Amino acid sequence: MPPTKVLMLVCDGMADRPLKDKGNRTPLEAAKTPNMDALAAAGATGIMDPIGPGIRPGSDTSHLALLGYDPYKVYTGRGPFEAAGVGLKLNPGDIAFRGNWATVDAKGKVLDRRAGRIKEGTQALAKELDGVEIDGVKFILKAATEHRTVLVLRGKGLTCSVTDTDPHKENLVAGCKAIDNTPAGKRTCKVLNEFTKMSMKLLKDHPVNQKRIADGKPPANIVLVRGAGMTPEMPPLAKAWGFDPVAIVGVALIRGICTLAGMEVPVVKGATGGVDTDMMAKARAAIKALGRHDLVFMNIKAPDIGGHDGDFDLKQSSIERIDEAVGYIKDNISSDVGLIITADHSTPVPVKNHAADPVPLLMFGDGVRTDNVKAFNEKAVAHGGLGRLRGKDLMPIMQDWVDKAEKFGA
Amino acid sequence: MPPTKVLMLVCDGMADRPLKDKGNRTPLEAAKTPNMDALAAAGATGIMDPIGPGIRPGSDTSHLALLGYDPYKVYTGRGPFEAAGVGLKLNPGDIAFRGNWATVDAKGKVLDRRAGRIKEGTQALAKELDGVEIDGVKFILKAATEHRTVLVLRGKGLTCSVTDTDPHKENLVAGCKAIDNTPAGKRTCKVLNEFTKMSMKLLKDHPVNQKRIADGKPPANIVLVRGAGMTPEMPPLAKAWGFDPVAIVGVALIRGICTLAGMEVPVVKGATGGVDTDMMAKARAAIKALGRHDLVFMNIKAPDIGGHDGDFDLKQSSIERIDEAVGYIKDNISSDVGLIITADHSTPVPVKNHAADPVPLLMFGDGVRTDNVKAFNEKAVAHGGLGRLRGKDLMPIMQDWVDKAEKFGA
Repeated sequence: MPPTKVLMLVCDGMADRPLKDKGNRTPLEAAKTPNMDALAAAGATGIMDPIGPGIRPGSDTSHLALLGYDPYKVYTGRGPFEAAGVGLKLNPGDIAFRGNWATVDAKGKVLDRRAGRIKEGTQALAKELDGVEIDGVKFILKAATEHRTVLVLRGKGLTCSVTDTDPHKENLVAGCKAIDNTPAGKRTCKVLNEFTKMSMKLLKDHPVNQKRIADGKPPANIVLVRGAGMTPEMPPLAKAWGFDPVAIVGVALIRGICTLAGMEVPVVKGATGGVDTDMMAKARAAIKALGRHDLVFMNIKAPDIGGHDGDFDLKQSSIERIDEAVGYIKDNISSDVGLIITADHSTPVPVKNHAADPVPLLMFGDGVRTDNVKAFNEKAVAHGGLGRLRGKDLMPIMQDWVDKAEKFGA
Repeated sequence: MPPTKVLMLVCDGMADRPLKDKGNRTPLEAAKTPNMDALAAAGATGIMDPIGPGIRPGSDTSHLALLGYDPYKVYTGRGPFEAAGVGLKLNPGDIAFRGNWATVDAKGKVLDRRAGRIKEGTQALAKELDGVEIDGVKFILKAATEHRTVLVLRGKGLTCSVTDTDPHKENLVAGCKAIDNTPAGKRTCKVLNEFTKMSMKLLKDHPVNQKRIADGKPPANIVLVRGAGMTPEMPPLAKAWGFDPVAIVGVALIRGICTLAGMEVPVVKGATGGVDTDMMAKARAAIKALGRHDLVFMNIKAPDIGGHDGDFDLKQSSIERIDEAVGYIKDNISSDVGLIITADHSTPVPVKNHAADPVPLLMFGDGVRTDNVKAFNEKAVAHGGLGRLRGKDLMPIMQDWVDKAEKFGA
């Protein structure tokens, strides 16, 4: 019988390129992955371009594609997904940014882009600015982890076609410009620059900053923002594809994407979105969630971090820990579950950034046409029976697999 | 020398999924297919998504794609292809339905959707209604096999965005509704519901029904219709692709598609469109047709029927009979013929319906780049040299193969 449920595991940034001084192996090839290899041997494999061949995906755009959305239609910037990821309720049309508490001099020249990586008192600082209105635009500010914030502009006649107020370098002055010369661009810049000045005014003598200065720490006396995006109208995944989905994800950006897709995103204790995340806790949560949901979407961020750091060994060990979690999943899923393992993009160690190399793809479960591939790594699965697919193909393939698909025609 | 002619054989619904209790084999894997295996070994193979990955194709939409049409542009419903398949001459813009003779009570409640599977007298019944006009709309009704009919509405201001008048279940009342709230929707519904009432009035005391009632059989006292579609403007295949084509097909729906594609569709004695079809007669007809045409398109419906019935053995034996016909073709085609064997969709035995799994594809003939694949089945050809293609790719590939393609550029 075809499966009735799907568990989809995205190993963030797992795919890589072969490294000469590692015997021409990728981290996934070098890693001991007996569980994923066994699933590959018993399943079907292939490679996948998350967006398209040669298109270097962001984690956000790739996840949008994997969840069945067209990133070229719904994605204008990272802000809305970060904002949703820290729990802000957004409306379509809201302009959202991610931001930092930072330190500037009296003229707005940036001295420290992270205000000494401030940890304490940011909730109190956010309270000063959250809810202010400028020219009919409401500013919603939320403190996130450490020096991070999210900022939402809600009002009429706004656009996300504005530059960051964050100059991205110290010793430059904060402030944004309109990217196109439209009335909305001018208006958005004007109110955002006013908000930025207001943040300097209201934070300057705040007790939290008075204490920081007394302690010899840089004050958090400005909010710098970047990654403007307009909150898209996204039909809920449940409605679009007929699944009852849940997301087991730690990292805020992906939590935000899943939230905007209308998915339940429970907090899993120990799931940090970092290399220290409790992968077994996530695996247990995923298996448990299969009792109540027919689509469990998992993201494990760790391998991406090793890629960005250019740390082959860290990436390899992250993958080996994922394989242990996969072992738990393999031993605990029932036969009515189809399992998909893939990645959202390559983060090659020699590149230290995302790259467009296709990612490995594995389908295991009833009805899958097995192929001759016996191991789960970039080179082996490139000979797999699934051939070369795209990220946007996954949702329809899953929908067809569990027999929820409607026929096009008769 | 490149081939100058192509014979394309579509084995309807042949592709499948591996079944556990059949040794994890598909019907095609289980079937003895020495001829198709020999062609695979001597040719090139691959897999093909008839519409796209994960898109579950109808036979109609898939055949449109295989014949070089974009089903998303030309397909609105099955009706026009069924109508063309029984020999009705359609104009672009005609709204066509397939339908049934059925039995209703005086209030229009359906008692038997097939009027006791009526066989005799349906031509006389159709004569009562064929050609009636309501509010400027001409109704063209044709009796098809047994309880089946086709109905065409010809007139201005009509749409196919109406529901079926067939309630699809007994004890419900016949009648259609507009799907969108447009003037055309309202108008189409109004005249169609009036026609339905008229069918009740004119059929009620018809001598055919008087005799049926006297014989204790349910009268055919209403026409129920379904599958509204607007007849598309389809450029003839000959003009679009430069072939002089002929179709050797039995089943009405595919005959209709080929007819609307402007193809000659001769009647082959013994070709029934059922499992009992005379496959060798079709093979002989195809070989003969290659004397006068440079594109012979064949469809053999039988494997699809085993799939829909969930009957592995029936499907396997249908495929084995196809292989015998392929043997005849193999032994009788000249070296200037390129041969393509594929399917229009998967109809997996465990699904009992079409599914989106890709179909096997085989090209045999001069100029083909052979690959390492030695057998013709879903799993073997997934490792083939043609990779993973789409249905719409076939016509250009064939056109190029026979050296009819024009260069794009210089």
